[in-house]
Amino acid sequence: MLRPAEERIVHVPLGERAYDILIGPGLIGRAGGEFTARLKGRRAAIITDENVASHYLAPLMDSLQTDGIEAVSLTLPAGEKTKSFDNLAAVADMVLSAKIERNDAVIALGGGVIGDLAGFAAGIVRRGVRFVQIPTSLLAQVDSSVGGKTGINTRHGKNLLGAFHQPDLVLADTAVLDSLSPREFRAGYAEVVKYGLIDKPYFFHWLEKHWKQVFEGGPERNEAIAISCQAKADVVVEDERETGRRALLNLGHTFGHALEAATAYDSSRLVHGEGVAIGMVLAHQFSARLNLASPDDAQRVAAHLSEVGLPTRITDIEGELPPTDVLLDAIAQDKKVKGGKLTFILTRGVGHSFVADDVPPSEVASFLEDMRS
Amino acid sequence: MLRPAEERIVHVPLGERAYDILIGPGLIGRAGGEFTARLKGRRAAIITDENVASHYLAPLMDSLQTDGIEAVSLTLPAGEKTKSFDNLAAVADMVLSAKIERNDAVIALGGGVIGDLAGFAAGIVRRGVRFVQIPTSLLAQVDSSVGGKTGINTRHGKNLLGAFHQPDLVLADTAVLDSLSPREFRAGYAEVVKYGLIDKPYFFHWLEKHWKQVFEGGPERNEAIAISCQAKADVVVEDERETGRRALLNLGHTFGHALEAATAYDSSRLVHGEGVAIGMVLAHQFSARLNLASPDDAQRVAAHLSEVGLPTRITDIEGELPPTDVLLDAIAQDKKVKGGKLTFILTRGVGHSFVADDVPPSEVASFLEDMRS
Ligand SMILES: NC(=O)c1ccc[n+]([C@@H]2O[C@H](COP(=O)([O-])OP(=O)(O)OC[C@H]3O[C@@H](n4cnc5c(N)ncnc54)[C@H](O)[C@@H]3O)[C@@H](O)[C@H]2O)c1
Ligand SMILES: NC(=O)c1ccc[n+]([C@@H]2O[C@H](COP(=O)([O-])OP(=O)(O)OC[C@H]3O[C@@H](n4cnc5c(N)ncnc54)[C@H](O)[C@@H]3O)[C@@H](O)[C@H]2O)c1
Ligand SMILES: [Zn+2]
Ligand SMILES: [Zn+2]
Repeated sequence: MLRPAEERIVHVPLGERAYDILIGPGLIGRAGGEFTARLKGRRAAIITDENVASHYLAPLMDSLQTDGIEAVSLTLPAGEKTKSFDNLAAVADMVLSAKIERNDAVIALGGGVIGDLAGFAAGIVRRGVRFVQIPTSLLAQVDSSVGGKTGINTRHGKNLLGAFHQPDLVLADTAVLDSLSPREFRAGYAEVVKYGLIDKPYFFHWLEKHWKQVFEGGPERNEAIAISCQAKADVVVEDERETGRRALLNLGHTFGHALEAATAYDSSRLVHGEGVAIGMVLAHQFSARLNLASPDDAQRVAAHLSEVGLPTRITDIEGELPPTDVLLDAIAQDKKVKGGKLTFILTRGVGHSFVADDVPPSEVASFLEDMRS
Repeated sequence: MLRPAEERIVHVPLGERAYDILIGPGLIGRAGGEFTARLKGRRAAIITDENVASHYLAPLMDSLQTDGIEAVSLTLPAGEKTKSFDNLAAVADMVLSAKIERNDAVIALGGGVIGDLAGFAAGIVRRGVRFVQIPTSLLAQVDSSVGGKTGINTRHGKNLLGAFHQPDLVLADTAVLDSLSPREFRAGYAEVVKYGLIDKPYFFHWLEKHWKQVFEGGPERNEAIAISCQAKADVVVEDERETGRRALLNLGHTFGHALEAATAYDSSRLVHGEGVAIGMVLAHQFSARLNLASPDDAQRVAAHLSEVGLPTRITDIEGELPPTDVLLDAIAQDKKVKGGKLTFILTRGVGHSFVADDVPPSEVASFLEDMRS
C-alpha cells in the first residue's frame, strides 16, 4: 500500500492483542484498505456523533464500500452525556442487528466519548468483537484511543462501568483535526504536553519551540501525535491493566478532576484538558512547595501552557468555586486514600514525574488555599 | 481451617487469574472464612434469586458478618428472563451504591442465571471487581460457575452480550442441592454425563453404577461434582477464550439448542439439560449412522439417561414441534456454517468425542426426519 511520507506507525506489542496505530493525513480515505489488510471480517458497524458524521461519515463509508466491506452506521448526539447505559444498550442492539460476528468490527468514528462507548459495546457483544478506532479529536488521537480502556458514566460517577478491550487497529487521521474547534484542540494539546512532563524533557523542549506548527498542521503535528501515542503505548504495554506505572498518566489529573467536579462538569466553564492544564501547573507548584522541584520548572510549564492559550491558574476559571474542603473531598474520592495519606503524581522537575503515595491532606489543603487567593 | 473429609478442591491454574473451586457440604456456613482467606476486600454485594434467597441468603449473610465482611444483597425474580439488560443495569447500580471497589467482591448466590448476570456486572463495574460464585443448582456447580463466561440475553438471542470474567473463588455447597427440584437436578446431571461422554469413558461407567447415590447425596455426589469441575477446568485452562478445544463442551448442545428454540424456550416443555440429554443421544445416533461409532454406544447412552428420568428422544417432547427445515435453520444459526458445511461434536464411541466441521446439512436433515417418526 502507498503511504504518504509523513505517515507514522506505532506498534503496540500486546502479544495476541497487539495492534498498529497509523498516524497521518488522509487515513479515513484509505480506511477500507487498512481494514481489509488486517481484519478477517467484512462487516462493520460504525458509531459516530452528529458533529463528526457531518464531515467524515460519508467518506468513511465510501472507502469501506470500495474495499468490499458492508458497513452500517449509528449517529448519536455529541457530548459527554452520550456515554450512558441507555446508549450502550442502543449501540449493542444496533451491532447485533447488523449481524457483526467475532471477526467483524465495531468502528468508533469520533472523539473520546464515541471511542469509550463504542469500545465498551465492542467488548461485550458476543463477549468481544473486533474494534477499530478512528479518533477524530486531538485528545482521542493522543490518549483515549490507545490503551483499551472503555466505559460509560453512571449517576455514581464518570467511567464507572467499562471493559478493557484493546482495539485491533487505530487510524489517527491528522487532517480531520482541522475541523476541531480551537478550544478542543488546545484541550487535547494539554495531554500532549503531559507526555513531555512525565518523562520526556526533550519532547517538552521541542513543543516549546514547535507548538505553532503543531497547531497549524503539517509534519510537526504528525510528529507530536506519534510521540504521544508511542508514550501512551509504552506505559500501556508495561501495565495493561493499570496496577502500577500507568498511574503516571494521571499527572495533573487529580487536581484537574477535582476542578471538573467543582465546575459540575460544565464544559462552558472548563473542559477536561483545561482542568489538566491547570492541574499540571499545580502539580509542579506543589512539588516546588514540597522542595522536590525548582519553582522555575513550574513557571516554565505555566508559561508554555499559557502561550498556547490554556488556563494555568484556578483563578482562570470563570464563576464561583466551592470552598477548599469540598475540593479536597473530591481529591480524596478521586485517588484512593491509603491510611489517611493521598496518592499524587509529583515531579522533581520537567520530565521527571513520579508516584507519591504519602501526601498529607493538610499540605494539599493549605496549598490549595494559597493558590486560590 | 478445618475442612470436612469429603471436601474437594479443584484448582484452576490460570496464571494471575488462578482460583480455587471448593466442593462439599456446608460451605455456605463457612463462606466468610474462605472469603477472608483469599480476598483482600471486606465488602460484598450478594446477588441472588427469590427461590434461593428463601433458603440460603440469611445463612450466607451470617457467615460473612461473623468474619467481618460488610455485605448487602439484591434479590431478583427466578428464571431465565432475569438475564436482561435492565437487570444488568440494576445490579451494576446496586454494586456501585454498595461502594464495591476493585478488591471487594460481587457474590453470585444461585443457579446459572444469577451467576451469568452477577458475573457480567462484576466484570464491568470499575472494569472488573472481584467475583465469588456460590452456585446452588447442579448445573451451575458443574458447568456455568467454572470458566469465566458471563452474559445476558437480548431480543437477538441468548447470551449475546457478556464478558470473560473469571471468579476469584467458587464455593459449591453440595448440601444445597437437596432443595433443588428433582427435574432441575436431573437437568444438571445431563451435563455431568456429558463430561464422561466427551473423553472419560471410565467416568461414564462409574455414573452408570453410582448415579443413585449421586442423586441421593453423600460422597458420590461430591465426587461426581468434583470430577465434572475438574473436567471443565481442564478444558478452560487449555482454551480460556474458546477458540478451539472448548467446543467439545458443546456435545449434545447443537441439537439441544435447536430443540430449546423449537419449544420457544418454554421450560414447562423442555429445560436446557433435557435438551442436552436428547441432543447427546442424537449425537451418538448420528455418529452411528455416519459409521463413526457403534449403535450400541448410542443405545447405552440412551439407556442410562432414561434410567435417571431424562428424555432421550425428540418424540419425548410434549406438544407440536416445527418442521425439520426449521430445526435445521436453528442448527445452522447456532453453529457457524463453514462453506456450506456444519460444525458438530460427533463421537467414535462413549468417551471419544471430537469436533467435526464438515457435516453436510442434507445428512442432518434426513437423520432428523427419521428420528421424528
Ligand atoms: N479511554 C481512555 O483511556 C480515555 C482517556 C482520556 C479520556 N477519555 C474520555 O474521552 C472523553 C473526552 O474525549 P474528547 O475530548 O474527544 O470528547 P468528545 O468525544 O466529546 O469530542 C469533543 C467534541 O469535539 C467534536 N469533534 C470531535 N472530532 C471532531 C472533528 N474532527 N471535527 C469537528 N468536531 C469534532 C465532538 O463532536 C465533540 O463535540 C471523555 O469522556 C473521557 O472520559 C478516555
Ligand atoms: N456461563 C456458562 O458457562 C454457562 C454454562 C451453562 C449454562 N449457563 C447458563 O446457566 C443458566 C441455567 O442455569 P440453571 O439451570 O442453574 O438455571 P437457574 O439459575 O434458573 O436455576 C434453576 C432453578 O432452580 C432454582 N434453584 C437454584 N438453586 C436452588 C436450590 N439450591 N434450591 C432450590 N432452588 C434452586 C432457581 O431459583 C431456578 O428457579 C442459563 O441461563 C444458561 O445460559 C451458563
Ligand atoms: Zn486526560
Ligand atoms: Zn449446557
